Amino acid sequence: MAYIDLGVDEDQFPGINGPMRFRPETAKPLNELAEVLLRQPHPTLSPGERELIAAYVSGLNSCEFCCDSHSAFAAAQLPEGSSLVQMVRRDAASAPISAKLRALLGVAAAVQQGGRHVTAEHIDSAREAGATDVEIHDTVLIAAAFCMFNRYVDGLGTKPAAHPEQYVFAAERIVTFGYGASGQRRDPSS
Amino acid sequence: MAYIDLGVDEDQFPGINGPMRFRPETAKPLNELAEVLLRQPHPTLSPGERELIAAYVSGLNSCEFCCDSHSAFAAAQLPEGSSLVQMVRRDAASAPISAKLRALLGVAAAVQQGGRHVTAEHIDSAREAGATDVEIHDTVLIAAAFCMFNRYVDGLGTKPAAHPEQYVFAAERIVTFGYGASGQRRDPSS
Repeated sequence: MAYIDLGVDEDQFPGINGPMRFRPETAKPLNELAEVLLRQPHPTLSPGERELIAAYVSGLNSCEFCCDSHSAFAAAQLPEGSSLVQMVRRDAASAPISAKLRALLGVAAAVQQGGRHVTAEHIDSAREAGATDVEIHDTVLIAAAFCMFNRYVDGLGTKPAAHPEQYVFAAERIVTFGYGASGQRRDPSS
Repeated sequence: MAYIDLGVDEDQFPGINGPMRFRPETAKPLNELAEVLLRQPHPTLSPGERELIAAYVSGLNSCEFCCDSHSAFAAAQLPEGSSLVQMVRRDAASAPISAKLRALLGVAAAVQQGGRHVTAEHIDSAREAGATDVEIHDTVLIAAAFCMFNRYVDGLGTKPAAHPEQYVFAAERIVTFGYGASGQRRDPSS
């Protein structure tokens, strides 16, 4: 059970869903941030690649709910599916991804440790692999944002989903409707 | 100089101001989140107290720009002004604040370390000192959000303000216009 009374059945509304229903005023900008960062059209990074960065950082922060949900969202949007997501989570250095995405994951891992852990070398490696300023900016902000979301979910002691298929259903909803819809609906499948 | 070309004079637009002008799409929800968390009417926590939590967490994350700017925003809105902010930053345990605010700062410090560092004991201490569910929720989310803002500012290698009075001017603007205005204007005083 969460540390505060979220006013919802936590089995139906696991992880961030409870706090978002408890405080819709903050849920609105949080969902809008996720929508812009992870789903809005991007010149070069696909939604699946951006969700992979989110899942990777959530894994580094040991946030079970965020890591499992964003892994499902990444898998649903990457041609290689969940096998690639699992390989990246296990060992990003050896996973079959582009040099650019690997370097961006290196930037994200530094951000997860702390803003001052990012060095000119991390950025140079990303640039040498072809990353643009917008890609570097968005990677830093996705990683930073998941250092927030992960702390929000675990700092309030919420429960992860009881059944893995809940993440698959959530992925269908996110891919179809986006994050804007997820904070509003009181549909028990959400 | 920041790690990416933010397209602004960083002396005029220090810290988060550069990335927010570089990417207005993400600046919008980020400013809205700050506005709701730190400035919207709250049943019990004043804007000054909420800014104090933000400054405290930013200090723990060694983010000079965020700590100095939110310290100025707190000082401008607390009856005790900057002397109290300095005392809290130096040693929250001995600063002359209420037992409730001290316990909430304890929750915030745990969130700064990581979501899983928050324990039932932190929450019980806050409750015993009179904290409500909304206060605990908002403290967790303010602390989590500043773990994002701090990483965003330092992960992109932005510069803090060159002159301390820039934070005082920024405080006047935030107190008068709020965060909604700060991401939009290209006024050199901002």
